[in-house]
Amino acid sequence: MNEERRNRSPLAEKTPFPDGLDARLRSQFTFLVEVDQLKTVLRQSPLVAADRRENDAEHSWHVAMMVVVLAEHSDEPIDVGHTIQLLLLHDLVEIYAGDTPLYDGAAGVGQQEREAVAADELFTLLPPDQAQRLRALWDEFEERRTPEARFAKAMDRLQPLLLNWMARGGTWRTPGVTADDVRARKAVIGDASSALWEAGRRLIDEGEARGWSRSAPPRA
Amino acid sequence: MNEERRNRSPLAEKTPFPDGLDARLRSQFTFLVEVDQLKTVLRQSPLVAADRRENDAEHSWHVAMMVVVLAEHSDEPIDVGHTIQLLLLHDLVEIYAGDTPLYDGAAGVGQQEREAVAADELFTLLPPDQAQRLRALWDEFEERRTPEARFAKAMDRLQPLLLNWMARGGTWRTPGVTADDVRARKAVIGDASSALWEAGRRLIDEGEARGWSRSAPPRA
Repeated sequence: MNEERRNRSPLAEKTPFPDGLDARLRSQFTFLVEVDQLKTVLRQSPLVAADRRENDAEHSWHVAMMVVVLAEHSDEPIDVGHTIQLLLLHDLVEIYAGDTPLYDGAAGVGQQEREAVAADELFTLLPPDQAQRLRALWDEFEERRTPEARFAKAMDRLQPLLLNWMARGGTWRTPGVTADDVRARKAVIGDASSALWEAGRRLIDEGEARGWSRSAPPRA
Repeated sequence: MNEERRNRSPLAEKTPFPDGLDARLRSQFTFLVEVDQLKTVLRQSPLVAADRRENDAEHSWHVAMMVVVLAEHSDEPIDVGHTIQLLLLHDLVEIYAGDTPLYDGAAGVGQQEREAVAADELFTLLPPDQAQRLRALWDEFEERRTPEARFAKAMDRLQPLLLNWMARGGTWRTPGVTADDVRARKAVIGDASSALWEAGRRLIDEGEARGWSRSAPPRA
């Protein structure tokens, strides 16, 4: 990891904390200032409430809020608090690695490696025990082997679907993307909740019928 | 409540959900679209990572993230997941009631009543059982009678303190506000964590020493 790590100064060095602050708290505050940058990572999704794109911090709050309201639809029992923690930190690596648009195949190349390097760099700001714990939470989200991780992933995919519906297309209108592409990328919702995937599919189908996404070209 | 309720159309009516969506899910989606507006409520605090003010959704994410990292400093045992849920929704009422700056005494008049009316209106969008549950969480945060609510409040006060430190003053420079006013408004941090209040006080004291906040005028 050390070789790949970029030599970036933590944001907190702009205004160093005063002497005499406990070393553990200093690390924790340094990390918490560093993640302020999540508010500046722009996503593709348009807000409903304003004419601008969403940022990662807003998205992370919104998907966490969705767990509070939608957890009952999980097909397997989930720990709500744990699921929310996965979502609060699922996009932190984008502070260094940038957002990768869902429908951009080229941008997706090397994404996993870039994000793993970013995770090493970011979590190292924390005291070692917490660096390990947060890294484990991020790995859990990425690997989707627990019911909580699957439900968290479903929220991550359902939230922009709601925003796109409200925008009457949104990123569904990305050049070259078809309604079948959207269905394919959103199908993981069904790994967590058949009810939510049924509802999501209904929005995608109805959007396609209204011309808010492209129907697949006829086969040759 | 009914008399006071304003006749506001839910944001989701901009693009009504399709027929055949389950009624309970329709209510939940309507609520989740409505709260998109939290991303448009501006606070006084300046971001560290960009030259603009923070919005409520970004703030709500940041304080929730702080619980994940700082929970160990609570003087009483707390349920981390529950504390986070309190914070995810603690500012939702500001969608209708607006943000009330901490150091603005005039804006604070009637704040409690305005926010209670807003809570009635907002949570009513949910299915009744969930409206009741989320209202209870919001009341719990406001009343500060549980260790979780006290720790959540501490995060709500500590987060802008970190942002103000990083900005070398920020809202500490609000006209008429003194370092003693800051100490008075932040002292609730000590109800949850003596370690975090010691650290917070150190930042305030050092900020005052550096002229980032006004020292109290000499007494007559």
